[in-house]
Amino acid sequence: MPHPLPAILAHLDENAAAAEARLIDWLRIPSISAQPAHAGDCLRAAGWVRDELQGMGFAAEVRPTAGHPVVVGHHPGPGRPGGKASPHLLFYGHYDVQPADPLALWTSPPFDPVVVEGPHGPRVVARGAVDDKGQCAMWLEALRAWHLVAGGPPCAITVLIEGEEEVGSPSLDPFLTANREELKADVAVISDTGMWDIDTPAITTSLRGMVYAQVDLKAASRDLHSGIYGGAARNPINLLSQIMGGLHDADGRVQLPGFYDGVRELTNAQRVEWDALRFDEAEFLGEVGLSVPAGERGRGALERMWARPTADLNGIWGGYTGDGSKTVIASEAHAKLSCRLVPGQDPQKVAESIRRFVAERLPADCTAEVQVFSTTPGIEVAADSPWVRAARTALTEEYGKPAVLMGCGGSIPVVESMQRLLGLDSLLVGFGLTDDQVHSPNEKFEFRCLHKGARSHARLLAEIAGRTA
Amino acid sequence: MPHPLPAILAHLDENAAAAEARLIDWLRIPSISAQPAHAGDCLRAAGWVRDELQGMGFAAEVRPTAGHPVVVGHHPGPGRPGGKASPHLLFYGHYDVQPADPLALWTSPPFDPVVVEGPHGPRVVARGAVDDKGQCAMWLEALRAWHLVAGGPPCAITVLIEGEEEVGSPSLDPFLTANREELKADVAVISDTGMWDIDTPAITTSLRGMVYAQVDLKAASRDLHSGIYGGAARNPINLLSQIMGGLHDADGRVQLPGFYDGVRELTNAQRVEWDALRFDEAEFLGEVGLSVPAGERGRGALERMWARPTADLNGIWGGYTGDGSKTVIASEAHAKLSCRLVPGQDPQKVAESIRRFVAERLPADCTAEVQVFSTTPGIEVAADSPWVRAARTALTEEYGKPAVLMGCGGSIPVVESMQRLLGLDSLLVGFGLTDDQVHSPNEKFEFRCLHKGARSHARLLAEIAGRTA
Repeated sequence: MPHPLPAILAHLDENAAAAEARLIDWLRIPSISAQPAHAGDCLRAAGWVRDELQGMGFAAEVRPTAGHPVVVGHHPGPGRPGGKASPHLLFYGHYDVQPADPLALWTSPPFDPVVVEGPHGPRVVARGAVDDKGQCAMWLEALRAWHLVAGGPPCAITVLIEGEEEVGSPSLDPFLTANREELKADVAVISDTGMWDIDTPAITTSLRGMVYAQVDLKAASRDLHSGIYGGAARNPINLLSQIMGGLHDADGRVQLPGFYDGVRELTNAQRVEWDALRFDEAEFLGEVGLSVPAGERGRGALERMWARPTADLNGIWGGYTGDGSKTVIASEAHAKLSCRLVPGQDPQKVAESIRRFVAERLPADCTAEVQVFSTTPGIEVAADSPWVRAARTALTEEYGKPAVLMGCGGSIPVVESMQRLLGLDSLLVGFGLTDDQVHSPNEKFEFRCLHKGARSHARLLAEIAGRTA
Repeated sequence: MPHPLPAILAHLDENAAAAEARLIDWLRIPSISAQPAHAGDCLRAAGWVRDELQGMGFAAEVRPTAGHPVVVGHHPGPGRPGGKASPHLLFYGHYDVQPADPLALWTSPPFDPVVVEGPHGPRVVARGAVDDKGQCAMWLEALRAWHLVAGGPPCAITVLIEGEEEVGSPSLDPFLTANREELKADVAVISDTGMWDIDTPAITTSLRGMVYAQVDLKAASRDLHSGIYGGAARNPINLLSQIMGGLHDADGRVQLPGFYDGVRELTNAQRVEWDALRFDEAEFLGEVGLSVPAGERGRGALERMWARPTADLNGIWGGYTGDGSKTVIASEAHAKLSCRLVPGQDPQKVAESIRRFVAERLPADCTAEVQVFSTTPGIEVAADSPWVRAARTALTEEYGKPAVLMGCGGSIPVVESMQRLLGLDSLLVGFGLTDDQVHSPNEKFEFRCLHKGARSHARLLAEIAGRTA
């Protein structure tokens, strides 16, 4: 019997249009986890993928949590009586998406996907196009092709698709803990990261963590007239600006107490590897209309984005924000602040230092509530595992050039949860591009990435099953 | 023939309920000048007061401007053939009101006035209750009583009621300039200031001016993912916080370049007079839930509020402000900033220094637009004019205790316009209280102030006509 891979790849090529249509169908569901009004849509998005899994031979269910549900699917693989146990992969993804605002900046409605022609061929524009429905679609299509061509995947597969990734996955850890036995596997495979560029596949071996907090300052018991009270009453917006304006020094170093405790300098090997990527920061910034690198002075661009922690205000609001003028001293001011963390930093200590930083700068008659929405550490993945080696082979074969090992400035908290709660390493193979407008208006996904990503995942399954058979 | 004043005062007492009802009628019209959607309501509020004036013997009209219209009314007074020309008063007020937001903090709808019992008796709660419809209502009722009891006011009267005071009166100067001859008078009478307390009448002899600006910062050409771009891309909210957080030094001194140029220290006489008022700042701040004086260190409370300039952020916004978390680096951030000015400061120079302050702190790839909505200087009114002496007498008779001369931390730009364009001094006799919640939710006006204010204005007319007869 010939190896089924060539036929599987051919099947993916021949059925590309159907795969695109399926993704578009899923993208129509506005599964915004942050907004309670969309809870029903989250449930629909979960049901959609459960049905897909059932259609490709999985035992799949939508499982409740305290928040949005989790989709779990199992496939036993081929079974090899008397042989070595087939490896067991756990594919993770998320069906929830970011809020779509600001709506006015979308060129088409965020949940009415459109296919437009770009420099790399057709692409789909919609919220969630790449993050993470498009990335899930690739391994779903690979599993479907294995099912249709070879009767099922070449190894045991568990699928776990959550619906709260964009709000910090509050229900995931309890779910993993409660279902630890059921979710046993050998490695987690996650597609939520990027390629180096559209021609260069990549495996991500380090991720930044995150602490996300909201600071709510309160001063007077009501809004005040700035003519009457100006010069006497504390202005919480001025105060918030002073506090947040002090987050960085003139060199861009974060001033939260103890913020850099445990942060490690790059190893020589990392520095050499990343230098070899010849990252063009001017071009990277130029694509979004910027030219002056931000962040810590004296650090390289990839180092700042992959290996240094940050403190960014993600939102700020208070007082009068309508047309024209209103001479008010507001009673409240608010900010959302997130710190990207690197391996070695303790997220709980960073959260505590945000609280202290704010508290130490408060006058006695003001109050500050600091709500911490999420705390995840930065993590590193071993680069020399059999899983990474299998992925390098599969990607290199698909793309005809070596896959690179890179860092990622973003956070995929589930990687840490998989390790801590299930004892699983993660293999991070993603197909996003830097211009995909993730979390922004006009998020898109290249169909070229969808197809070559599905082919790569089909190859990866063959490679892993073959290596460990 | 007996002097008509006793009968006029008795008439005001007997018809108090009707006066209250008329004010409530006017308050129902949501004449918010800042919001284009309320342009029709501004026109209705203007028509309402024109009709009132016509009903008390005035030739009154709603006159168009480039913005909201102005109401002008004329009454020739008694006419004294062969006698000395009767003095001619110009009453100024404004029918427009501040926006009502935040709506959630109102205990009753802002444009559905309710009368509630307070420690000083009944009060009306509505946007505009005191600022400035309630304050206009007092002199309108005084004029009505003179009309009904004595056939008309005892001197020539011009009434000018504009509809753009809350947005910096952009059309007023052109209107005064274009109608300079028609608006000739001997003095302007303005009720838009406060009493010292509910038992102590006051005449205001200094006012702060204002520069109101909006700062719009732009960085990247689109919103960015903080995981991908954090550490590389400029965050305009961080930048805005840094810029605005630097507006004051640790002693509360404003850091705009040249900000204090021309600011005068208090005279000894002022210091003695204001010290004698024994202002209780702890109580003043305590009423609004505060206890730590803000503003410049080492300055007295009344000095900080009446004779020192300020810089207050009136609004700030940018990025994600909804529920939960969104890991975005926004492309824009915005703030509204107003500076209260004192006599001696040049508003144009202050506006220019705001522009410079922002521009000097911008990275090369960010832009800042600074829109200046209004520029009015601080002003002082001569305390020893015949008008001030007449007002002191009238107020002292009504209240049974001496009227005090005070400063006002707010801005009444028209006072400067009257002086510059019509050559008119202003007599500032107001009946607001510090707890009237001006510009805040649940703005209110005490009916006791409405009635005693109307009686005071009736006395003032008699006093001015008598003195100068």
